[in-house]
Amino acid sequence: MRKATAVAHPNIAFVKFWGKVDEALNLPANPSLSMNLAALTTVTTVEYRPGYRKDAVTIDHQPVSGPAWDRIVAHLDRVRALAGIDDRARVVSVNNFPVGTGLASSASGFAALSLAAVRAAGLEMSEAALSRLARQGSGSACRSVPGGFTLWEGDTDETSWARQVAPPEHWDLRDVVAVVEHRPKAVSSSTGHRLARTSPFYAARLAWVPELLSAAMEGIQRRDLARLGEAAEADALALHGVMMTSRPSLLYWQPATVQVMQAVRAWREEGLSVYFTIDAGPNVHCLCLAGAAGEVETRLRNLSGVQSVVVSGPGDGVRLTDQHLF
Amino acid sequence: MRKATAVAHPNIAFVKFWGKVDEALNLPANPSLSMNLAALTTVTTVEYRPGYRKDAVTIDHQPVSGPAWDRIVAHLDRVRALAGIDDRARVVSVNNFPVGTGLASSASGFAALSLAAVRAAGLEMSEAALSRLARQGSGSACRSVPGGFTLWEGDTDETSWARQVAPPEHWDLRDVVAVVEHRPKAVSSSTGHRLARTSPFYAARLAWVPELLSAAMEGIQRRDLARLGEAAEADALALHGVMMTSRPSLLYWQPATVQVMQAVRAWREEGLSVYFTIDAGPNVHCLCLAGAAGEVETRLRNLSGVQSVVVSGPGDGVRLTDQHLF
Repeated sequence: MRKATAVAHPNIAFVKFWGKVDEALNLPANPSLSMNLAALTTVTTVEYRPGYRKDAVTIDHQPVSGPAWDRIVAHLDRVRALAGIDDRARVVSVNNFPVGTGLASSASGFAALSLAAVRAAGLEMSEAALSRLARQGSGSACRSVPGGFTLWEGDTDETSWARQVAPPEHWDLRDVVAVVEHRPKAVSSSTGHRLARTSPFYAARLAWVPELLSAAMEGIQRRDLARLGEAAEADALALHGVMMTSRPSLLYWQPATVQVMQAVRAWREEGLSVYFTIDAGPNVHCLCLAGAAGEVETRLRNLSGVQSVVVSGPGDGVRLTDQHLF
Repeated sequence: MRKATAVAHPNIAFVKFWGKVDEALNLPANPSLSMNLAALTTVTTVEYRPGYRKDAVTIDHQPVSGPAWDRIVAHLDRVRALAGIDDRARVVSVNNFPVGTGLASSASGFAALSLAAVRAAGLEMSEAALSRLARQGSGSACRSVPGGFTLWEGDTDETSWARQVAPPEHWDLRDVVAVVEHRPKAVSSSTGHRLARTSPFYAARLAWVPELLSAAMEGIQRRDLARLGEAAEADALALHGVMMTSRPSLLYWQPATVQVMQAVRAWREEGLSVYFTIDAGPNVHCLCLAGAAGEVETRLRNLSGVQSVVVSGPGDGVRLTDQHLF
C-alpha cells in the first residue's frame, strides 16, 4: 500500500484547551472535551512515490507552501520515521467548509492526514497511537481521531491523547454553527496559545477547568443539555476573557458574534434550550437538542450578521475510504 | 439658606472599581482613577421646607419612586443627620444625557445631590468630606467631587474618598463617547458589583489593578496617551472578563460595542492614536488627544451601530450655581 485516503471531522470543544506546556509536542495546559462535527468533513489522500522529489501538498485545490507546508512535511516526517521510509508524498486534501475561521480545519486536517499517511506507509496503529500522532501535528486533531464525544487528557508525550467518552449515537446533540465571518482570522490559534500565559486570568481559568470539565462530562453522560451548555458557555467566556487580556490583547469577536450571544440568551429566557460556545474565531456554535435545531437554525438565519448556518450532529472518528482524491 | 443648586459631571474611569468590600458603605474592592466629563452635566436643586410631608424627587421631569427614591431619601437622611434638621426636601435634577446606560449618571447625580443637600442645610464641608459623603450615596460619585483627574483610594468609611491628581487644564485629553444604546441596561451596576466575586477572575483582576493603576497614573502625569490608553483598555477588558464569567454571567456588550472596539484597534494600526474603555454598559469611550477628537468623532459617526457621539474634555468638580431649577 502506497496510497490511502482518510475522512475526518473537526470537533467543537465544550471545554477548550488554551495554552501549551510544551509547544513542540503540543502538550496542552489543560484537558479538553469535544464532539466531532458530522456535517463538516476533511478528506485527505496521501501517496508516497520514489519518483517524487519533494512533498507536494494541495488543500482545497490550492498548492500549499510556506509555514503550512513545513508543518505538513514535519508531520509526514514523523510517519516516515516510524515506517522507516524516505519517499516523498503527494497530499491532496479537500474540506467542505472554510478553513482558518475557527471551524477547526486543522483538527480534521491533521486527523485525516495522520491516518492517510500512516496507512499509505503500510503501518497499523491503535486509535490511541493515532490520536497521539495527530496531536503532534495539531493539538486538537487528537480529539477528532476517536468517534463521538472525546476527552483529551495526559501531560506527557506518551500519555497525551484523546479517548472516546461516548459514541455518536449516545446523544442527539446538535451544534448549529452561526458563521459570521468566512475570512481567515487575523491571529492564528498557534500564536494565541503562545500568548495565553501573558494573561493575568490564565492561571485562574486553568484552576476553573476541572469544575467545568466535570460538569460538562456529567452533562454528556446524563444527556443533560443545561448542565453541558452552562459549562460550555462559561468556559468559552473564560477563554475569551483570557484572550482579551493577553498582551497583546486578542479580540476574536465580531459585532455579529455578540449579536448571536445576546440572541441565544434571549431565546433561552423565552424557553428555547440553546447555549453557545466560541472557539478562537468569531463564529458562534449553538448547542441544542436535535428537536430544536430547526428552530435555532431559522432564528439564526434571521439575524442580520449571520452569513450562513451549518447544523451538525455528533460525528464519527477518522476512518479510511477507498474514494481517493487522485 | 434652605435651597441650593449644584452642578456635577459624571466621570470615566481609566481603572475602574468592580466589587465592594462593604456594600452598605460603598467601600470598593480596589482603587480607581478617572476623569470628569465636562460635556455631560447634572444640575440638582435641593430645598428643605417645614411644609413638605415627604421628600419629593424628580429626575429629568419624571417623579421618582421605588428603590431610586429610597436611595435618594437615604442620602438626604445622611445630610439631615449631620445638620440636625428634620425637614423634608424637594429635589429636582436634570441631566443633559441619557441615564442608566453606562454614562455614569449616578456619579454626577450623587455628587450634585450631596453638595446641594449639604449647602441647602447650611453646612460647610471640605472637598474630602463631600467626596466621602457622595461615595456613601453612589460609589463612583466620590470621583466627581474634585475637578479634573481624580483618584479614589482608602479602605475604611473614614478614609475612602477621591482626591485630585491633576486639574482639568493639566491635559487636553478627550473622551469621545460612542453611544450605541440609549436604553437603560438590563442589569444595574449595583447588582453587577454584587456578582463580581462569583467570577473566577475576580481575584486575578484585583491583583492586576496596582500595575494598571500605576501605568495609568504615570500616563496622566506625563501626558502619555499610549501609557494611559493601554492601561485603560486592558483594565476595561479585564473588567468585562470578570463580568462575563460571573455567575450569572453579565454581558453588557452589544454588537456595536465590538464594532467600535475593532474599529479603534484598526485605526490605531493606521496611526490614529485612540484607545477605548467601557463601563458597565454597551457604550464605548474612546480616549484621544484634543487634536484627534474631530477625526475620531467623524469616524465613529460613520459606523453603522453608533447612534450618537459625545465629545468631552476634562471637567471641573462639583460646584454651586445660583441658577436654581425651581
